[in-house]
Amino acid sequence: MAQTSNGTLAEVAAASTAGPAGLSAGTIGDSEFDRDTAVARRADEPGVYDAELSAGWTIINAVNGGYLLALLGRALSDALPHPDPFTVSAHYFTPSQPGPAVIRTESVRSGRTLSSGQASLFQYDAEGREVERIRVLASYGDLGALTGEVCTTAEPPVMPPLAHCLGASDGPAPKIPGSNAITDRLHLKLDPATVGWALGAPSGKGEMRAWFGLADGRDADPLSLLLVVDALPPTSFELGLKGWTPTVELTVHVRSRPAPGPLRVSIVTRNLAGGFLEEDAEVWDSADRLVAQSRQLARAPRS
Amino acid sequence: MAQTSNGTLAEVAAASTAGPAGLSAGTIGDSEFDRDTAVARRADEPGVYDAELSAGWTIINAVNGGYLLALLGRALSDALPHPDPFTVSAHYFTPSQPGPAVIRTESVRSGRTLSSGQASLFQYDAEGREVERIRVLASYGDLGALTGEVCTTAEPPVMPPLAHCLGASDGPAPKIPGSNAITDRLHLKLDPATVGWALGAPSGKGEMRAWFGLADGRDADPLSLLLVVDALPPTSFELGLKGWTPTVELTVHVRSRPAPGPLRVSIVTRNLAGGFLEEDAEVWDSADRLVAQSRQLARAPRS
Repeated sequence: MAQTSNGTLAEVAAASTAGPAGLSAGTIGDSEFDRDTAVARRADEPGVYDAELSAGWTIINAVNGGYLLALLGRALSDALPHPDPFTVSAHYFTPSQPGPAVIRTESVRSGRTLSSGQASLFQYDAEGREVERIRVLASYGDLGALTGEVCTTAEPPVMPPLAHCLGASDGPAPKIPGSNAITDRLHLKLDPATVGWALGAPSGKGEMRAWFGLADGRDADPLSLLLVVDALPPTSFELGLKGWTPTVELTVHVRSRPAPGPLRVSIVTRNLAGGFLEEDAEVWDSADRLVAQSRQLARAPRS
Repeated sequence: MAQTSNGTLAEVAAASTAGPAGLSAGTIGDSEFDRDTAVARRADEPGVYDAELSAGWTIINAVNGGYLLALLGRALSDALPHPDPFTVSAHYFTPSQPGPAVIRTESVRSGRTLSSGQASLFQYDAEGREVERIRVLASYGDLGALTGEVCTTAEPPVMPPLAHCLGASDGPAPKIPGSNAITDRLHLKLDPATVGWALGAPSGKGEMRAWFGLADGRDADPLSLLLVVDALPPTSFELGLKGWTPTVELTVHVRSRPAPGPLRVSIVTRNLAGGFLEEDAEVWDSADRLVAQSRQLARAPRS
């Protein structure tokens, strides 16, 4: 699959996923997502990158964890010899806020098919001291070098076609405390079976399903999948819990390069206990390939 | 749930899980598992621990990854202010061998309910230089301080009672290349539906289920759950693949203190693709609580 910008594919994708905001079509390397996850390597400090956390990806009272993971993933993609995230494990320490950040990476080991590294994202306190927000361990490889062999029993989520799913423009805005800015960056169409929370009638099931695209039509790539797994409303909304569901730990496996076109995302919570819950996400591409799997441990909202 | 040694509970557990080796009953704090995962804090180097990797926990050509995770988990339990692993993410770089090892820990952040840290396990090369085997990020808490609230849709695995499942003493030893030493440390009784691999007739399904106990009857605790999630034969055996399935990354969520008595472990692989596979494990205790969830990314065997 070509990872370089491809006019024809991008146009097709833009036509199928362009959001109501009518933003100009973004292509891989030249999009809202790419601009807002850009990192600048410091010339005098190897492995250190400056970044600006965009206010455009905030939700409730913090910057979205998937967006942050993509930003860390981009730094590691530059720092490590292999290009693609295979497995990325992130532990979230403190909520990130829009503004400047610095990412410090460490290359731990370089093997033939996999290389491994670590990265931390810091912001600054009132005295200008670095405060660590997130730390990540990751193993990178080359998805293009994998064999084509697929032996899977997993099946794509059962959900209505995109045209029958519901987005931000299809009804009154649901009541979410704080910022909802990320909504404008995404072309998210929720399975009607999992929108009860927005209408005051949560299903009681820990499930959330949606068609996913970036609002400017940029296609998915391995890096953006790190965002995708954490970009839906939390399953806790459908369990009748409002408020923020802060991620403690999130691990993503990227299993294949996504084909162009909209993605399907299914998130399931099976065990809410003792004030914590897991969210298991699967991401399927337009070619019916399971392209990413993730699991996170999060704190349940208090309500 | 009392974590201290309890004669009566330990005797019950020993009676129900004592292995054919006829080992003396082990209790928490005084067992094969505790002896072999012991770590010795260096007096002159804060956060550094010496350990001896036991040959008793080897499988095929390396020390078992779950055993190693428990060893790292024990060091972090000492180094961090909170006692119990809540989520532990490990990236495995090089295979560990029996013999001396050193664990270097770092306390990253201490919060009220969670503290986070990092640990690496090193061994020595021929020149005595440290070689990093595994690196771990972890968030610890106090399972005893969690609310009793449980809202779960997950169900225990459907499998026959322990007496109808099959262990090492119930048939000829299956052909496994290299060491099989870990078998003697465990009282593992496999669901007959997932033992086809040992008889030359793998089911073709990526499933493995077993009743789990330690051979000396020691009860499970949060630390031993880090072993349990990686102690069954790999699901790839039932997919007809022989040989080693090296773990790239393994993340465990410990969700509750396990009740005394045998555990049920279910492992499922849904996506074997491009030479990699995931293994999702669930561990259920004798009180029907989901006590641990894990996922690993592993390389598929070549055969």
